[in-house]
Amino acid sequence: MKTNSYYPLKFENDNLTFIDQTRLPLQENYITTDDYNRIAEAIERLEIRGAPLIGIAAAYACALAFKNKNYKDDDYFNKVYNRLASTRPTAVNLFYALKEIEKSYSQISDNDVYRTLLSTAHRIFADEENYSEKIAKNGLNIFLKKSNVLTHCNTGALAAAGFGTAFAVIKRAFENELINHVYVDETRPLLQGLRLTAFELEKNGIPFTVQTDSTAAVLMQEGKIDLVITGADRIALNGDSANKIGTYNLAILCNYHNIPFYIAAPSTTIDRTIATGSEIAIEYRSSRELLFIGGHQIGKDSYQCFCPAFDVTPAHLITGIITEEGVFPFPYNFIR
Amino acid sequence: MKTNSYYPLKFENDNLTFIDQTRLPLQENYITTDDYNRIAEAIERLEIRGAPLIGIAAAYACALAFKNKNYKDDDYFNKVYNRLASTRPTAVNLFYALKEIEKSYSQISDNDVYRTLLSTAHRIFADEENYSEKIAKNGLNIFLKKSNVLTHCNTGALAAAGFGTAFAVIKRAFENELINHVYVDETRPLLQGLRLTAFELEKNGIPFTVQTDSTAAVLMQEGKIDLVITGADRIALNGDSANKIGTYNLAILCNYHNIPFYIAAPSTTIDRTIATGSEIAIEYRSSRELLFIGGHQIGKDSYQCFCPAFDVTPAHLITGIITEEGVFPFPYNFIR
Repeated sequence: MKTNSYYPLKFENDNLTFIDQTRLPLQENYITTDDYNRIAEAIERLEIRGAPLIGIAAAYACALAFKNKNYKDDDYFNKVYNRLASTRPTAVNLFYALKEIEKSYSQISDNDVYRTLLSTAHRIFADEENYSEKIAKNGLNIFLKKSNVLTHCNTGALAAAGFGTAFAVIKRAFENELINHVYVDETRPLLQGLRLTAFELEKNGIPFTVQTDSTAAVLMQEGKIDLVITGADRIALNGDSANKIGTYNLAILCNYHNIPFYIAAPSTTIDRTIATGSEIAIEYRSSRELLFIGGHQIGKDSYQCFCPAFDVTPAHLITGIITEEGVFPFPYNFIR
Repeated sequence: MKTNSYYPLKFENDNLTFIDQTRLPLQENYITTDDYNRIAEAIERLEIRGAPLIGIAAAYACALAFKNKNYKDDDYFNKVYNRLASTRPTAVNLFYALKEIEKSYSQISDNDVYRTLLSTAHRIFADEENYSEKIAKNGLNIFLKKSNVLTHCNTGALAAAGFGTAFAVIKRAFENELINHVYVDETRPLLQGLRLTAFELEKNGIPFTVQTDSTAAVLMQEGKIDLVITGADRIALNGDSANKIGTYNLAILCNYHNIPFYIAAPSTTIDRTIATGSEIAIEYRSSRELLFIGGHQIGKDSYQCFCPAFDVTPAHLITGIITEEGVFPFPYNFIR
């Protein structure tokens, strides 16, 4: 159902084709592969990123691992599974998708492993598209008037199926004349806001402005922001939410300025095994991600950097969590 | 009195030599000129930056304008004055220094304009060195124990005479064994923290870590920050303070986490003509400063960016203001 001229990934002719997100927005390069290890590398390098999209890509990778080895081999399956599970620790959707693939693999009685896993991957993709559609629809309920919205990182078609999570809400609200302007945090260190969300807003014809992450405070001080929506990478049962570094900062700014702060995510982002955010494993990335921008060095190699990829926003700072099931207000009591 | 191996600017052999701060930390290039217009350009391009240092450089520029024209010429003086006054609007120190030069010029009866203005420029420099020294000493009073300090932008020898403002406090505290570790906000968009403060901390042997601006919130959440000190570019009589974009964000984070937030600045930074921060003119910079990093393009030219160079932190978020006269606690009532 995409009408715009880009897509995050597509399964076609027994290959996965994905856009190299590290080159956006200046280059729109697509990479085609049937090598599960190449897909694992793409996830590690952030060529493929976004919590739901990582899950979808990992599911296709597992299927493709059996394209030329179309019979059950538990040791091989475990090797593939572990390779993909090791790519990134924080987004729960990856593990959700791998568990679904594992369940599907374990139920195979004939030997058409490839087609069976592929149909599971297609189903995961379709489910996520369906979630995106419903999140967009449910998200309309948070708009009390035509609004200026601020968002962080990227939560669009480049991060999830359909039109994504928070981005899908913004797009649907724009189509319903509920968006005046979108303000995008550039999202250091990897600039997903400046590089990816700006790219998607432009492709979708939605008016926007980019600012440095700390400038969000000035926009709020000037009364220019009506509400903030971001995505999430893992949500605990009490609503504590891990998301891209900078989200916690943003939630504090909303709290201080009395601006509603929403999270939009499919229910697959809720980790039903953990009670609070303190149990969420945070991925730390290399100092290089601060010291280099697009290969261009800005700081000395000797400088020590603190680079968590995510932070955890406590539930009490989150006005509501939008999932495919509805808009949940604080306090959250997701069911185990 | 500098013992380290770099200096921001030096007047020598009837020329001004300054370090090109846009190339730091990877290249330590010094530029020598006696052309006042070249110095004005250096201020505009941020080759010379930092509120007190801009004032010093502008004073030397005015003197150098009369090096080869050593007689009074009011039209020419006004042209030079206006050229320098037009470089940057927010830092009050520039206008303070230009007023001192103007006073000095107006009192000249003989025709040795060059030497007279030069001696005024030297006096401004010496005064600022003296302020830095006293700010450092007064700043020791804010340390209740050996502390982890977070700072924003650059406030060291590259920003002011002596060892600067907030940086001078940190350096003196380190020498007094009151500093455990310094955390430096990279300070987008121009990365003065990552490029300049890290450079100065390394040169001075002070242990430090750099983080993206939004990651300061995580450090505070983890209990790693005992206090925050920044500089200021213009302070109103009620204490509202303009400083590098991101300072207001930081002050809100301190407020939320109950961490003391201090500003260190010479009293020349207090604008005694304005009652509150709402009267401070904020400089807006080009979208290019977001879209390009060190000449490397990261976003499309078509992307609209919101780029205030400074923000205004309301006085009630500032625990204390450290000047050469002492540490002033909130509420502030600086004298007109």
